[in-house]
Amino acid sequence: MKFSKVPEATIRRLSTYAHHLEVLEENGEVVVSSANLAQACGVNAAQVRKDLAYFGEFGIRGVGYYIKDLADNIKTILGLNREWRVAIIGIGNLGASLLLYKEFFKNNYKIVAAFDINPAEVAGRVSERTGKPVEILNPDQLKEVAKDRRIDIAMITTPASEAQKVADLIAQTTIRGVLNFTPAQIQMPKGFEVKNYFFTAVLDTVAYLLKWKRR
Amino acid sequence: MKFSKVPEATIRRLSTYAHHLEVLEENGEVVVSSANLAQACGVNAAQVRKDLAYFGEFGIRGVGYYIKDLADNIKTILGLNREWRVAIIGIGNLGASLLLYKEFFKNNYKIVAAFDINPAEVAGRVSERTGKPVEILNPDQLKEVAKDRRIDIAMITTPASEAQKVADLIAQTTIRGVLNFTPAQIQMPKGFEVKNYFFTAVLDTVAYLLKWKRR
Repeated sequence: MKFSKVPEATIRRLSTYAHHLEVLEENGEVVVSSANLAQACGVNAAQVRKDLAYFGEFGIRGVGYYIKDLADNIKTILGLNREWRVAIIGIGNLGASLLLYKEFFKNNYKIVAAFDINPAEVAGRVSERTGKPVEILNPDQLKEVAKDRRIDIAMITTPASEAQKVADLIAQTTIRGVLNFTPAQIQMPKGFEVKNYFFTAVLDTVAYLLKWKRR
Repeated sequence: MKFSKVPEATIRRLSTYAHHLEVLEENGEVVVSSANLAQACGVNAAQVRKDLAYFGEFGIRGVGYYIKDLADNIKTILGLNREWRVAIIGIGNLGASLLLYKEFFKNNYKIVAAFDINPAEVAGRVSERTGKPVEILNPDQLKEVAKDRRIDIAMITTPASEAQKVADLIAQTTIRGVLNFTPAQIQMPKGFEVKNYFFTAVLDTVAYLLKWKRR
């Protein structure tokens, strides 16, 4: 099965739907209407139906969606019914936050390795925050560790000036997914799935909207 | 002037172009071709020209773009030729990282206030990391502080379960832009520009692409 024509905005919304369905499930709900699911997720009901229609027929007329079924289906679509093994490269403020981020455990992402060019110093600093020993590896071990620990996705949280060097290292490994948190645009060979996630770009969008739409 | 029909993807790319143009400028470059700008930003030259065409005619045939002019124009378009005053609400791991994030200073965003429901405890913890005293305010001061410090944008970095409470507080202030870092979908009255920036949604996109596109 291939879903190559599905817009990425749909995928991001599916991720939101899945999260909200989990909240409903935790609250003991069984069924949700597309209108309620839509409202909780900040879209309209037609959008929910259109997004789901890419993947099949999930709703029941006059009832809505069975929460657990729909959540399971979305997780299967997104590939969240398996574990994704993640590495963090660059353990500064942001990298350390991600390393300590509890939300990961809910989402089938497992951080299996953390890398920094100053492993000993960084391990000391992070351990101080957690009160537990933390393993930080040298990036020159990336290729070997990626294979041994079956890393799927690398998150780049170095300074922007180091991002391409890290991308070049990743290109030599078995890792195939990259989430680039730096403002640098990284070049990678074909066959890698690279997403940029630089938050000031989103902040710029808010600034733009505030500047132009509210006059 | 209103640019209400410009796609948000264009705005995000403009932000990327602006960042790359700054790097070129710092390197002493004067002119860049649309092909080179495009390549550095991970898009094609036609996309660069199309994105810029929403706002006017910037290139010179056979020359390309004057880097400083184009950077200045994009900053004006995005509203980055002025200071945007930002508050961070919820100073856990992520909030503290944002508070200490140096990239802000380059981008005309100024963090003017930080809020947490445990101000004293959090101020102590953050001060330990920075070696300097840090002011953390109680969220019940938000309305007053937002007005006094002319806060434009609030970043919500609380646990997801608290996000709507914070959104309700923001709705009563003069703040009009919101960047929600939590997985919760927040509801706000009309007139607010709200963007969600929950990073596992992007990670989910990478997982989806790895699952389906590489078979």
